[in-house]
Amino acid sequence: MNENLPNIAIIGLGLIGSSIAHAAKHYGVASEIRGFDNSAEVCAEAKQIGLPIILADDIKATVSDADIIFLAVPVGVMARVVRQIISYLKPGAIITDTGSTKRSVIDDITPIITKNIFFVPGHPLAGTEFSGPSAGFPTLFKNHYWLLIGEDKTNAAISVMTCFCEKLGAMVEVMDADYHDKILAITSHLPHLIAFIIVGTASDLEHDLKNDVIRFSASGFRDFTRIAASDPTMWRDVFLKNDQAVLEMLKRFNDDLAFVQNAIKNQEGNILFNLFERTGEIRRSIVDIGQATD
Amino acid sequence: MNENLPNIAIIGLGLIGSSIAHAAKHYGVASEIRGFDNSAEVCAEAKQIGLPIILADDIKATVSDADIIFLAVPVGVMARVVRQIISYLKPGAIITDTGSTKRSVIDDITPIITKNIFFVPGHPLAGTEFSGPSAGFPTLFKNHYWLLIGEDKTNAAISVMTCFCEKLGAMVEVMDADYHDKILAITSHLPHLIAFIIVGTASDLEHDLKNDVIRFSASGFRDFTRIAASDPTMWRDVFLKNDQAVLEMLKRFNDDLAFVQNAIKNQEGNILFNLFERTGEIRRSIVDIGQATD
Repeated sequence: MNENLPNIAIIGLGLIGSSIAHAAKHYGVASEIRGFDNSAEVCAEAKQIGLPIILADDIKATVSDADIIFLAVPVGVMARVVRQIISYLKPGAIITDTGSTKRSVIDDITPIITKNIFFVPGHPLAGTEFSGPSAGFPTLFKNHYWLLIGEDKTNAAISVMTCFCEKLGAMVEVMDADYHDKILAITSHLPHLIAFIIVGTASDLEHDLKNDVIRFSASGFRDFTRIAASDPTMWRDVFLKNDQAVLEMLKRFNDDLAFVQNAIKNQEGNILFNLFERTGEIRRSIVDIGQATD
Repeated sequence: MNENLPNIAIIGLGLIGSSIAHAAKHYGVASEIRGFDNSAEVCAEAKQIGLPIILADDIKATVSDADIIFLAVPVGVMARVVRQIISYLKPGAIITDTGSTKRSVIDDITPIITKNIFFVPGHPLAGTEFSGPSAGFPTLFKNHYWLLIGEDKTNAAISVMTCFCEKLGAMVEVMDADYHDKILAITSHLPHLIAFIIVGTASDLEHDLKNDVIRFSASGFRDFTRIAASDPTMWRDVFLKNDQAVLEMLKRFNDDLAFVQNAIKNQEGNILFNLFERTGEIRRSIVDIGQATD
């Protein structure tokens, strides 16, 4: 035990929660790492794979000594978890979350936060299509952005979190909640929604055709199925909680889709060509800034 | 020169054409490999990288000794190329194409084919988001399907092509043109179209937001930008030529999209959860049959 390192508690031992545990151990940035999950099955899996956490029987034992508490649960249950733990926390403790929507989490949690407890909303932009404790690994956050929500970067709790997340390998940016939700609506939520829908459309096809679609799945569709294999509970909550920003982006997308559909109907090749040229530029920008490594 | 191996000619030296040249050389399955491209720039690039082809100045010299002629050009120009070469071909020569749509190519080319020339429509289900001669590599087709169109697998020209494509590493299946176009509409054309549109939607965003979308591009969007970086000319032709099947799949997709949009509006979490669970099954089927390796 190193007195200078914080004790951390992780609630929710899925892909993100278990990766925080692995990373904290790997980089040696926490004194004690405690963990808790509501699901007995998940706890058994965490034990079985030797996840580097102290697995307490009750949530009180998990959080009462913690300096930083990570909430790595679906955004729909964040408030319930905070209500369960808030009275056990020690003064000065920082609660942070890893949810993919920020306005909703802030609105849900802020009223429950008590005096001398700090809340720093967060969102690591990292993940895979796999779920559960076995999916986690120590370098999940390495060279990925970890967004923290706040107005003032010099705020003490935000400084502590910035330092901690950077030690886990992440690049930290501090931004506004609504701006976060807008960016994520277009970069993550809408693409996931579309992938879920298109794979769903395929799964509704007649039996033979559906089987051949699976058999001959070409690269476009195969990429979509990977995205559409992501955790259903997490994503249901994302769309229910970031509904406004997602619906706004969906509206723009729908308009663009109708435009392109008409171009195909009317055999207007130049409209299609111009669009396809424009989208290549966005890819080149992403490659240029080194964000296209996976 | 091996008398038992065919001479091949490749028209169009982009990703697919150059990969056929590399593969034919790599696996030692052709006697002479001749190549031609309309674009002086592409020819210069092919020369510069040492693409293993005999680059003739005119198309006549390219095809007149060939046993198999590969048309690896956008589907919109297939007929024009066949018109250019047809009178130079030797009796018994096989023309095959690599286009992503098959009904349109067959309708365009069949009337031009002369006596003693065989036409075997084909489509290798392989590719990357990169274009041009430098994008090609010898193992592009390895363990990928190469679909040939025909009714009778024992047909001599189809047998020759099956054997040749298998030697390039591919798995060959013979199927009907319209069925091919339907499968490709859902596995490749629709996903590409959606990716082009969603990346286009992002590129229309206000300046700051657009820059941050590029900067913080999360995995869903990043995958879409890769797909949406594919060759504009090729894809314009695909949508113009497979318009019926694409529009039919788009209609189904639009209906499903409206349904999901309403579920978000009405906060119907169970509808979203059920869809997201169903799509995971399709992914598992693809992984089970070993088609999810890239």
